[in-house]
Amino acid sequence: MARVVVNVMPKAEILDPQGKAVIRALGRINVSGVSDVRQGKRFELEVDDSVSRADLENIASTLLANTVIEDYEIEVSE
Amino acid sequence: MARVVVNVMPKAEILDPQGKAVIRALGRINVSGVSDVRQGKRFELEVDDSVSRADLENIASTLLANTVIEDYEIEVSE
Repeated sequence: MARVVVNVMPKAEILDPQGKAVIRALGRINVSGVSDVRQGKRFELEVDDSVSRADLENIASTLLANTVIEDYEIEVSE
Repeated sequence: MARVVVNVMPKAEILDPQGKAVIRALGRINVSGVSDVRQGKRFELEVDDSVSRADLENIASTLLANTVIEDYEIEVSE
């Protein structure tokens, strides 16, 4: 049994309106010094040992990320 | 200048319909062995050294997470 985290972020060249909205909102709470915010998704999966790295790549690229506009990274921990 | 990651996940007792939708979709791509999926948000911030830990807590709890239904964790790396 392993805990797997898949991080899905917009590709660098893709506009990120949600992140931009956070930057604009920082003025309202009087915080300066934040130069960039990007918003993506985090998935936490509980998988058993029958799930291979290839299965995880398949899950991430098929179900979790839109690989046209998003990059993903897979972190496996026991 | 530091890179800060804020992970925002639904609290354990909160239903997560997006995660459930992923679990149902796994059958379509013939992957078994995944017992749970939870979906949250990942924010990547670029901050300068004037931004304190208290500022980050303020940003996370005010703008990034809805603390009624979500937990957050803050990871700072150089």
